[in-house]
Amino acid sequence: MHRTKVVKIAHKKIGGANPVLVQSMCNTDTRDVKATVRQIKQLEKMGCEIIRVAVLDMKAARAIKKIKKQISIPLVADIHFDYNLAIESVNQGADKIRINPGNIGSSDKLKKVVEACQKKKIPIRVGVNSGSLEQSILKKYKMKVTPKGLVKSALKNIRLLENMNFKNIVVSLKSTNVVHTIEAYQMIANKINYPLHLGVTEAGPPSVGIIKSSVGMGTLLYQGIGDTIRVSLTGDPIEEVRVGWGILKSLKLRKRGVEIISCPTCGRTQIDLPKLVEQVEKALKNIDKNITVAVMGCAVNGPGEAREADIGVAGGKGLGIIFKKGKVVKTVKEKEILKELLKEIKKL
Amino acid sequence: MHRTKVVKIAHKKIGGANPVLVQSMCNTDTRDVKATVRQIKQLEKMGCEIIRVAVLDMKAARAIKKIKKQISIPLVADIHFDYNLAIESVNQGADKIRINPGNIGSSDKLKKVVEACQKKKIPIRVGVNSGSLEQSILKKYKMKVTPKGLVKSALKNIRLLENMNFKNIVVSLKSTNVVHTIEAYQMIANKINYPLHLGVTEAGPPSVGIIKSSVGMGTLLYQGIGDTIRVSLTGDPIEEVRVGWGILKSLKLRKRGVEIISCPTCGRTQIDLPKLVEQVEKALKNIDKNITVAVMGCAVNGPGEAREADIGVAGGKGLGIIFKKGKVVKTVKEKEILKELLKEIKKL
Repeated sequence: MHRTKVVKIAHKKIGGANPVLVQSMCNTDTRDVKATVRQIKQLEKMGCEIIRVAVLDMKAARAIKKIKKQISIPLVADIHFDYNLAIESVNQGADKIRINPGNIGSSDKLKKVVEACQKKKIPIRVGVNSGSLEQSILKKYKMKVTPKGLVKSALKNIRLLENMNFKNIVVSLKSTNVVHTIEAYQMIANKINYPLHLGVTEAGPPSVGIIKSSVGMGTLLYQGIGDTIRVSLTGDPIEEVRVGWGILKSLKLRKRGVEIISCPTCGRTQIDLPKLVEQVEKALKNIDKNITVAVMGCAVNGPGEAREADIGVAGGKGLGIIFKKGKVVKTVKEKEILKELLKEIKKL
Repeated sequence: MHRTKVVKIAHKKIGGANPVLVQSMCNTDTRDVKATVRQIKQLEKMGCEIIRVAVLDMKAARAIKKIKKQISIPLVADIHFDYNLAIESVNQGADKIRINPGNIGSSDKLKKVVEACQKKKIPIRVGVNSGSLEQSILKKYKMKVTPKGLVKSALKNIRLLENMNFKNIVVSLKSTNVVHTIEAYQMIANKINYPLHLGVTEAGPPSVGIIKSSVGMGTLLYQGIGDTIRVSLTGDPIEEVRVGWGILKSLKLRKRGVEIISCPTCGRTQIDLPKLVEQVEKALKNIDKNITVAVMGCAVNGPGEAREADIGVAGGKGLGIIFKKGKVVKTVKEKEILKELLKEIKKL
């Protein structure tokens, strides 16, 4: 267990014994306030707890105040290179900024950013990425990105802030390489107690990005490392939030909505299980109950799993046996399973 | 690192220093030889290295010989309750059987199954599942499935075989609960050196099953636990094999095909990246080259990731810069990125 200090991002807290929060990043043009707010509201609904936006220019920085007025989750401004954008974002009400202190220009410029954050009492995330590691560090490792290099870069950037007496810090060291990501976070967890923002960066399209993110962040979270997570997928950020929750739920770190357990079907299955599971999943998508529903194909593991779940159905030859809290409720015809199952779930 | 003994399944070896193998299970009716063979051939093509079929009756057992003649990967017969089906499967040429020795009937019946396996020199997988834990063990834990209960059941079943001087064993202890799965395998890895077959059972529809399987098996594999894996999803087993490989590739345990790295896009992206990534993914799906391709939206992490990859493209305003082994190859218009990228990949 990596015990971290608590950092506040507006009304949300990360670190310490606080729950691991799910975050995402808008892929809209931040200057387009309407589109950005619309996306953030969709993400909030899916369970996004902190949102980040890219700040490319002054117009984007100035949009922050307008966006903030219309959303209810904390907003993080993502800035590269330009300290003026960082300061403007802070003044516009960003709840946290993400910068790499080393690429913000001179020490004087960084000092001004730090002062702005101190004044508003907002944290800075030091965000190290495999794709933007400093040349000076790359050179030490034969121009290769290594976990040690990621850690060295993070520590160097953290020190720049600490030297200005700034300790309201969150840290991330993301690599596209899952093994590097795991190793880098493990190493830094032994060295610092700032909250860690986990992520496998540029994880790719959902088909592979979900796997890479789940393996990388799951492995770390199981070890007690990580205070907030962001899944990076090429595509709709809605999916990032869904997957983030999926990872936390799978490790029982958070609860949210219905969990469906269903078997892979085999030669034993005598009902159309994939179709039934799809229907059940769809029907329960927006049900806000923390329950487990088992949808099982046959009598081998079916009754057992159905017994463990809050409610479940085990298929037989053209029929389904509905279980509730370990007891058989009724036996129904195959075509009535969905209706009857949903009826029983509503009663829970 | 969990050092296991080596077990042979026909021409494949698992355990010891052998690579972690990917397996799946047919969801066809095993008695339908044509459909089963067709599915196995599709799975083989996707990288399935061991295939399992459910044996429900004598007709299914007798189909094994016919199926085996037409496929080239080892075949495992999955049997519950009936020792006659196990013996017939072995005689028909199954390369391994999966049973729960405790539910095969009397000791005499088990003895006959063991003798059949000894004669043919084929291994038995002791397959414990959360859904089918023995009543006697459930009773010890207030009728709840626990990691300790899973381990106790596995050890009890293993002992039944060992007492008959049978040690050609593979073990699995799958739970639908990811945390239980991780804990159970960790516990048993400290007690036995038989190869472990990993799986999160009844992981559900792909939407959540991929996450649960990646988190559970990824965490174990990272710890050096696991000799073969099977992802259980409700749906097409093709997806199980793809996800299995994805997990192993993400941890650099195996190599297979192209790896695509792509950024999640943000307000900085100036090209239609999701579309480009989708096109690249589709075009490279069947390319049998162990290369990494980076498809990046902007100049922040783009060139860095593109430099680390074998080949990559970083988007700019209506254009793309193609990198190859760290060097800029050419700058092309946005609409020519795909064509030019594929052209360069072909040259690799």
